[in-house]
Amino acid sequence: MEGDPTVRLRVFDLNCWAIRYLSKRRQERVRLIGDMLRREDFDLVLLQEVWSEQDYSDLMEKLAGCYPFSHYFRSGVIGSGLCVFSKFPILDTLLYQYSLNGYPYMLQHGDWFCGKSVGLVIIKISGIIFNVYVTHLHAEYCRKKDTYLPHRLVQAWELAQFIQHTSKAADVVLLGGDLNMHPEDVGIRLLRGWTGLQDAFAEATRFEGCKNGCTLVPDNCFTDKSEMLPFPLGIRIDYILYKAISSFTVKCEELKTTTGTAPGMDIPFSDHEAVMATLHIQRQGQAVGATLGTAEPALADVVIEARMEVSVGLRAAQRQRYFSGRMVVLALLLLLLQAVAALGMLAGLGAGQPFPKLSFCLLAFLAFGLLVLATGLHLFHTMEVKMLHGTEEQLWMALRALPARP
Amino acid sequence: MEGDPTVRLRVFDLNCWAIRYLSKRRQERVRLIGDMLRREDFDLVLLQEVWSEQDYSDLMEKLAGCYPFSHYFRSGVIGSGLCVFSKFPILDTLLYQYSLNGYPYMLQHGDWFCGKSVGLVIIKISGIIFNVYVTHLHAEYCRKKDTYLPHRLVQAWELAQFIQHTSKAADVVLLGGDLNMHPEDVGIRLLRGWTGLQDAFAEATRFEGCKNGCTLVPDNCFTDKSEMLPFPLGIRIDYILYKAISSFTVKCEELKTTTGTAPGMDIPFSDHEAVMATLHIQRQGQAVGATLGTAEPALADVVIEARMEVSVGLRAAQRQRYFSGRMVVLALLLLLLQAVAALGMLAGLGAGQPFPKLSFCLLAFLAFGLLVLATGLHLFHTMEVKMLHGTEEQLWMALRALPARP
Repeated sequence: MEGDPTVRLRVFDLNCWAIRYLSKRRQERVRLIGDMLRREDFDLVLLQEVWSEQDYSDLMEKLAGCYPFSHYFRSGVIGSGLCVFSKFPILDTLLYQYSLNGYPYMLQHGDWFCGKSVGLVIIKISGIIFNVYVTHLHAEYCRKKDTYLPHRLVQAWELAQFIQHTSKAADVVLLGGDLNMHPEDVGIRLLRGWTGLQDAFAEATRFEGCKNGCTLVPDNCFTDKSEMLPFPLGIRIDYILYKAISSFTVKCEELKTTTGTAPGMDIPFSDHEAVMATLHIQRQGQAVGATLGTAEPALADVVIEARMEVSVGLRAAQRQRYFSGRMVVLALLLLLLQAVAALGMLAGLGAGQPFPKLSFCLLAFLAFGLLVLATGLHLFHTMEVKMLHGTEEQLWMALRALPARP
Repeated sequence: MEGDPTVRLRVFDLNCWAIRYLSKRRQERVRLIGDMLRREDFDLVLLQEVWSEQDYSDLMEKLAGCYPFSHYFRSGVIGSGLCVFSKFPILDTLLYQYSLNGYPYMLQHGDWFCGKSVGLVIIKISGIIFNVYVTHLHAEYCRKKDTYLPHRLVQAWELAQFIQHTSKAADVVLLGGDLNMHPEDVGIRLLRGWTGLQDAFAEATRFEGCKNGCTLVPDNCFTDKSEMLPFPLGIRIDYILYKAISSFTVKCEELKTTTGTAPGMDIPFSDHEAVMATLHIQRQGQAVGATLGTAEPALADVVIEARMEVSVGLRAAQRQRYFSGRMVVLALLLLLLQAVAALGMLAGLGAGQPFPKLSFCLLAFLAFGLLVLATGLHLFHTMEVKMLHGTEEQLWMALRALPARP
């Protein structure tokens, strides 16, 4: 490809659903993914939910021949799950961990433990600097009452700002990942409007795959059928987005998604479908400047809408902080009362014993447990309030700065 | 200043030591700082340890006339403590929270609760784009046995990388803050070597202030005299660093530090001395390219040294993760044993009662407490291992990429 003024880049993106002990037929599927990647010979592979570093090492070993360069982004308790395989040398990397990512006590959801992040790898192909971002945003567990929406919006905003601030020296920006947002959701409109990123699915000259480019489809044997009921065709939450920054143009020649089972097997690669884009990058005669985002008035509406959702989240977080603060005071009062009673007993003031020892001890146990729990909750919700407040303010600042945007 | 091809910029930096309920004569000092800032009329003010948002609001109100633009960076439980006041419009901001920042259980140190970060504000003066960074790294509580060194090194590396990746479109980069590192420490050599930032104190044509530019001096009535014993002249841990990126040159005409008490008062502004730089920025005839960092072989040595320290921290974190993991298993076994004994008693298998109820209950309480504590520790140290491992790998990557650096 070296020396060629135009570059054709084949990009692969997949949420691999490779959670140790939980994902069905994980090792078998990771093997299948590795075999397919070796066979298909893409230029750039962006994977999410590779939670086990062993799975990453296995993939790296298998793919060393065709993708000699790779990077795994470590974060959180479990890891970010993000990794990149590349045919071209990775010049530099940077990780940005989102400041909000669900709640540690929502163990059944577990997003908090993953330290959700955006990873940046910088790659140079034929003299063209590519800033490649891979990310995975907080899941949406209930679309009707999506309590995580403010957190996901904070993430979408931080992602947009991280891309804007780190891509100034890039020629081309690529973003791949599971954004956990439908194409019309406010978060994705904010991300695209603010950064000017284009949707490979919408721009593709040719498309082949699941209807409407869906990447979570009821036909996939691993998807939760009850969750898919309102969406008989499926939903599109995995994306490849791109833009040219300097004197280049990017065109999506072809977009594909996987459909059905892996070739010759009875299972698909993952519970998500993979997205595969063929991009055509060409140098222009003169600098075209940054790709423009959404037109200013429309973008202002999106920023206002996003800010409103963040404000709703802020008020909920403030209520929870207040509630947990009251619990702390309650637990302290209970402990104080018990201490006074115990001291009274020791000093022989009480006539007889007001409580049996066991109940007294259990109550102290309960009060202490409540104190620890409530303090933890209070600290967490204080941080949540700070970050939501900060984002609300930044969106306000963005709104004011909009008219001055190039 | 508009229209002038050269810009003279007066920058003020101070760690304000404004911790609610803990810092001595806090409100009085914040008032003094505000009065002085209004009187001195700087162009740019970078403050750290303004933990109370009320203090920030008071300052903002007082300084609205001479510094109409300001930003407060929110993060962590208490807040980042970072804020910026500016004569010139702030075009955009970004916050990067360091991935490691001490331990939540080290309550007496409390750094963890501050969510230590680096804040970026972008300012345009006479057509020159300034990327201004303000930060505060983890404190050093014991220089001889500095258990926080690996965390501070991770922060220094993340700071260096954040600056490198976000300043590509800037003309001039400014960094001010309390780095909690002596000028010869490996962290500051890594930061300066990797970014090419210049030390205003070392480059200043004129200097006036504490000897050697020290910012933590024994003469200050708020400093801990016992901590200063090995350093009779004081230490320099607060910095203003800068570099020109595109077709500009930056020169430090004058550097000053505060000395002694605030004018007409019996107390200084803070336990730190303020750093004040007068910078002279001039457009060059042709692009000078990025200021070069430390020469490659010397920088390689610094990266190797930093990586070694991070590795030491990684092994310590791995030991703590292992130890806390064993505690989890122990607590689980204890609870299991108790459950079996309790079931045995309920089924009437035991002849009589092996334990008095109270002791049994207390033991269960202890085991449960141990389980919660050990699980929390294990999760925390798992994250710590991930981040130290990630940084170790990134430093290794940096080392390999060094020969290809411009």
